[in-house]
Amino acid sequence: GRGIVHLVGAGPGDPELLTLKAQRVLQAADVIFHDSLVDPRVLDLARRDATRVPVGKRRGAPGVGQAAIHDRMVAAASDGQRVVRLKGGDPFVFGRGGEEVAALEAAGIDVHVVPGITAALGCAAAAGIPLTHRDHASAVTLLTGQVQDGDAEVDPATLAGGDRTLVVYMGRAGASTLARRLIAAGVPAGRPVAMIENGTRPDQTIRTGTLAALPLLARQVGGGPVLIVIGDVVRAAPAWKSRTPSS
Amino acid sequence: GRGIVHLVGAGPGDPELLTLKAQRVLQAADVIFHDSLVDPRVLDLARRDATRVPVGKRRGAPGVGQAAIHDRMVAAASDGQRVVRLKGGDPFVFGRGGEEVAALEAAGIDVHVVPGITAALGCAAAAGIPLTHRDHASAVTLLTGQVQDGDAEVDPATLAGGDRTLVVYMGRAGASTLARRLIAAGVPAGRPVAMIENGTRPDQTIRTGTLAALPLLARQVGGGPVLIVIGDVVRAAPAWKSRTPSS
Repeated sequence: GRGIVHLVGAGPGDPELLTLKAQRVLQAADVIFHDSLVDPRVLDLARRDATRVPVGKRRGAPGVGQAAIHDRMVAAASDGQRVVRLKGGDPFVFGRGGEEVAALEAAGIDVHVVPGITAALGCAAAAGIPLTHRDHASAVTLLTGQVQDGDAEVDPATLAGGDRTLVVYMGRAGASTLARRLIAAGVPAGRPVAMIENGTRPDQTIRTGTLAALPLLARQVGGGPVLIVIGDVVRAAPAWKSRTPSS
Repeated sequence: GRGIVHLVGAGPGDPELLTLKAQRVLQAADVIFHDSLVDPRVLDLARRDATRVPVGKRRGAPGVGQAAIHDRMVAAASDGQRVVRLKGGDPFVFGRGGEEVAALEAAGIDVHVVPGITAALGCAAAAGIPLTHRDHASAVTLLTGQVQDGDAEVDPATLAGGDRTLVVYMGRAGASTLARRLIAAGVPAGRPVAMIENGTRPDQTIRTGTLAALPLLARQVGGGPVLIVIGDVVRAAPAWKSRTPSS
């Protein structure tokens, strides 16, 4: 055959948050190209004799380039192997899944996408923060924090109105810039924020505060994956309630 | 004990898109309060002797009121039963999960939330539409279409800039209003849109077109759950490519 690749969302960390379909596809795989952020316990769900190939970037270390990932997937699939491309969270939310699908299709490979629990959903459930709420938020925006300071085509200020929740992925490094921009644009400095590190994992930590304190919270967290939630919905979190007993 | 309730996301339709954790919790449940939109094949995963209680609203028919749902969950949990509240998609994305968690906590019941694949993720994967893209979309906004014409505190126009994807849940009835507002606010009438009905289910249909054609697409779909995706990312969908071979 012309080969087949499954792009599979590995979810936010907790291996139990994989879908049944992801588990089935993973267990059938001959070779698995995986991000470095994928939890080892997820990889343990694959067959023992499956080949595991780490291709993700790690902080401070270059990964395999995107074009090389495409080439290796095409080669393996063309060779008749059942290929899984395992990505943290969901393949189509900040996962570059669109680029990989396009490259595989261009090479004549069948591609199927298996969605995953993206960090926003996993962390919200684990932190007790509803992303939308009848009274507080009728929309939620997922934004990557990995935008250069000068070139933001998405103005975060327009995404954080009073009736919305803003969720920022990979936002630790840009936290100060984000807070400054939002406050300069008129978002109240007292708007609640939560910073969740290692969400859904045993070592999950949740820090809550106000938008003005976001830079401070960013300095307090460790080296794990971080998700930031900004909005009144954060008041529902037990971590917020315990820090402000009067609210 | 004081009782325990799991709020569980049932995912977008395909029962294989349930998480492993959701399946485990579902199979341990004594009683399941479920939305009417939850796929019967998901309910089949529960124990045969578990009590299934439909509590969701159906189109045109009143459901059990929200307060009555809270009361029945509290009563069952207080009675020592293992309670699952099974909701379509994810409990914290347009699922009123926040209200249910608050009501249960107020009654002294332990609540845990198990996230689910929300419709945006499930439909994107099934339709081949990346929600974000390095070149086309650095943010994605999930919005409910069930906002009254006069009282929209979230202005959809601010959510559909050139570098963003807008996903509208339950947007069939409001499709004409939404398209009119977006175009009036300067969003190009030619921006690609996809309307996905019964996403991830065997009877899934995908219609693509431009923002100007959104009202027409809304009139063409049947009675199943509908998700609307607006943004340049729709060009990646096979359904878009097949209708515009020159693009």
